[in-house]
Amino acid sequence: MSTRAVTKSLAVLTIGATVMLASPLSPAHAQSIAPQVGEFRLANGMHAVVIPDRRAPVVTHMVWYRVGAADEPRGKSGIAHFLEHLMFKATEKLPSGEFSKTVARLGGQDNAFTSQDATAYHQQIAKERLEQLMAMEADRMVNLRLAEAEVLTERDVIIEERRSRIENNPGSILDEQMNQALYPNHTYGVPVIGFMHEMAQLSRADALGFYKQHYAPNNAILVVSGDVTVDEVKAMAERTYGTVATGPQIAVRARPSDPPPLAPRRIDYVDARAGKPVLRRYYTAPSYVTAAKGEAEALDLLLKIASSGSTSRLYRRLVVEQKIASNAGGYYQASGLDSGKIALYAVPADGHTLDDVERALDAVLEEIRTGGVTQAELDRARKSYIADYVYESDSQVALARRYGWGLVVGQTVADVESWPTNLGKVTTADVKAVAGRWLDIKRSVTGRLLPEASAAAAKPANQQAPANRS
Amino acid sequence: MSTRAVTKSLAVLTIGATVMLASPLSPAHAQSIAPQVGEFRLANGMHAVVIPDRRAPVVTHMVWYRVGAADEPRGKSGIAHFLEHLMFKATEKLPSGEFSKTVARLGGQDNAFTSQDATAYHQQIAKERLEQLMAMEADRMVNLRLAEAEVLTERDVIIEERRSRIENNPGSILDEQMNQALYPNHTYGVPVIGFMHEMAQLSRADALGFYKQHYAPNNAILVVSGDVTVDEVKAMAERTYGTVATGPQIAVRARPSDPPPLAPRRIDYVDARAGKPVLRRYYTAPSYVTAAKGEAEALDLLLKIASSGSTSRLYRRLVVEQKIASNAGGYYQASGLDSGKIALYAVPADGHTLDDVERALDAVLEEIRTGGVTQAELDRARKSYIADYVYESDSQVALARRYGWGLVVGQTVADVESWPTNLGKVTTADVKAVAGRWLDIKRSVTGRLLPEASAAAAKPANQQAPANRS
Repeated sequence: MSTRAVTKSLAVLTIGATVMLASPLSPAHAQSIAPQVGEFRLANGMHAVVIPDRRAPVVTHMVWYRVGAADEPRGKSGIAHFLEHLMFKATEKLPSGEFSKTVARLGGQDNAFTSQDATAYHQQIAKERLEQLMAMEADRMVNLRLAEAEVLTERDVIIEERRSRIENNPGSILDEQMNQALYPNHTYGVPVIGFMHEMAQLSRADALGFYKQHYAPNNAILVVSGDVTVDEVKAMAERTYGTVATGPQIAVRARPSDPPPLAPRRIDYVDARAGKPVLRRYYTAPSYVTAAKGEAEALDLLLKIASSGSTSRLYRRLVVEQKIASNAGGYYQASGLDSGKIALYAVPADGHTLDDVERALDAVLEEIRTGGVTQAELDRARKSYIADYVYESDSQVALARRYGWGLVVGQTVADVESWPTNLGKVTTADVKAVAGRWLDIKRSVTGRLLPEASAAAAKPANQQAPANRS
Repeated sequence: MSTRAVTKSLAVLTIGATVMLASPLSPAHAQSIAPQVGEFRLANGMHAVVIPDRRAPVVTHMVWYRVGAADEPRGKSGIAHFLEHLMFKATEKLPSGEFSKTVARLGGQDNAFTSQDATAYHQQIAKERLEQLMAMEADRMVNLRLAEAEVLTERDVIIEERRSRIENNPGSILDEQMNQALYPNHTYGVPVIGFMHEMAQLSRADALGFYKQHYAPNNAILVVSGDVTVDEVKAMAERTYGTVATGPQIAVRARPSDPPPLAPRRIDYVDARAGKPVLRRYYTAPSYVTAAKGEAEALDLLLKIASSGSTSRLYRRLVVEQKIASNAGGYYQASGLDSGKIALYAVPADGHTLDDVERALDAVLEEIRTGGVTQAELDRARKSYIADYVYESDSQVALARRYGWGLVVGQTVADVESWPTNLGKVTTADVKAVAGRWLDIKRSVTGRLLPEASAAAAKPANQQAPANRS
């Protein structure tokens, strides 16, 4: 049995068996535990990936559509997410709300989500129920029936969702404004949930129009992980999804792109509910699918070293050593179809200002841009990532998501599985190079959440809290 | 003869005759000199306004289309302006370039312009040539013939135009970025000339598609000022524009709108070519067509008092009294279909920083927001505006533009002519009210043009030039 042919349960045993070796969490090892994934394509264009995992008689079933909020027509923000909600209403065969009730009756769980680049519907269920579930999912792919009254009621639901998630959350409000500044022309600047004033106008016709343009087998990816073989899934998929006609109207994903960034942008948002002041810094960066070879993996490691956890440079300098911040961190978001994003944050400790922490944050970034990172930091970061990857590979749901996220933005199964190997090739020079290239202030938006109006958003930053200035 | 019935030449005499009266430049007087404007609508939907002016045997002829850059499809920025250029190519009847050559041969001049809300083609010519000109303009309204090679050559022209107007002009680059931040969702955030990377992809098909959607008599306004009667123009228009069929595909102007502004935005743009540092501040504000009754006229007067010329508050405080700025000023742009804009700027005097002038500028605005303006300031500003209005009314071209700008965004002739009267009604309380309401920092974008990278765009504002901080 080749290493590629190990089943998921053997893979886990392999992890245990290699703990005594020199490099138990090496990229090569991580690569070696890639599950035995099968792929096929139905005649109607639907792509399918199957990840066998025989440890328990359950399956995770996901259908990913190659459409997200960034594909919405202008002025119709929120329609992708709104449609995701409406997909739980009636079809020709099922009364409204019956989809989730049936899944629950069958002992399963279901949910869905919408991102800028994808909309996915997923369930976990006993393997014997898989085909019934696939038939239901195939049904709502094209047979949705929306009653006007139901659409209006559900619109109130998404409006309330925006209210609770965004309007009642000062940090989310700032994030929304920073994304608008980060992506002045690309639709990534429009919030996934939608602008309130546009959501309030969304109609049944908008939802059905979007549905017809984007929901069809030739715009969908089936991902099944669990106690099934590729052949079993293929047979079931042909009997269910295979009966759905190819959609003739699938729109090409043509998003506008941004001009080259020329100047750093800043946003001060004052909100009494904020509690503590917070500094945030976003940079646009490449994603797995837009990056030059190896750059995205180098960015993964850069941000792990710079900003992830209490051993990161940022945390050590600002919180542990200088004691000017009570928290600091960040991450690199690499899954986007058109762009990735670097996000950093810091919360001033009592007696210190946002200016203090911003200066210190910029000093840490400059330190990395000019001095690079150490081999020890790189090794530790890589090991941490590989460990996360290996442990995550133990989750049926996480595996299904891993392949789904990759395929929905155009990666192949091989691309998805090459990540540990690519990560293994990154050198300290690579990390320094991507830091120099992408932590460029011109690419950035700096946001400040200010709990008090007296923090003087109206005035230049240098008028704030002079007493604490270093 | 009623005052409304005076001809343009009599109106000018009237100005002379009333100089001795108490209020020669009163709003009532300005209103009284409104030319005797005639209006009609052709059967195909084309609206026409005629402004007789018999002083010389010439006419100004304009055709305004209710389409501008803000109506462009996403990803096709610059197509409105590109099409304006291409309108000087061939039609069924005229070879490429022949339009302007013919106008010149007839002793006339011609040009065109594109704004966010309008595209207009205009000529000045001897009255005897008017009908021939109208026939040519009617021809190119629907009979444009574009050769692929010519489109590509002209695309190089607009790209070069962008290069010289924007890329070689640091102030224009900053302006472009500030507008993007000012209008995060509305298409006013996209530059009229287009983003370079999108302009480079514009095609013949894009231009013709835009043309068919927007160029037709039912989306056009004819404005003729000069030595003609309404009946003469009507007869000529029926023989020329009247033969053009109503366009069936005219798109409704549906632009996305912005969410309520919640936080001030700041942009630092470093460019060695800048020469001097400059501070700019933009605010969104209502326009003539979006404002509550009287607000736009109060904003006209507010910005005249606050920022226009060497007697303005801003200039007096920053340049004359405090001597921290070498120049300071601003204006209110009120002609937009969906939004107006307030723009202010200040240039630090030698030895003073951008922070100094920003603090001083904010102090002047706060002074007006809380203390209002004086009756003397209001009277002086109003008189200055009325004088400009009256003197401008002496220009055939300016009159044609005045009515064209109003009508193309949906104003009526009566709306256009009521401006002096509305201006006359504004009180100091009104000015204070609009200052308080619209000079709200949350609505603003502050831009700083920095000639040196050492001005540290990467660092918070308070790290700059500490030696000069007050």
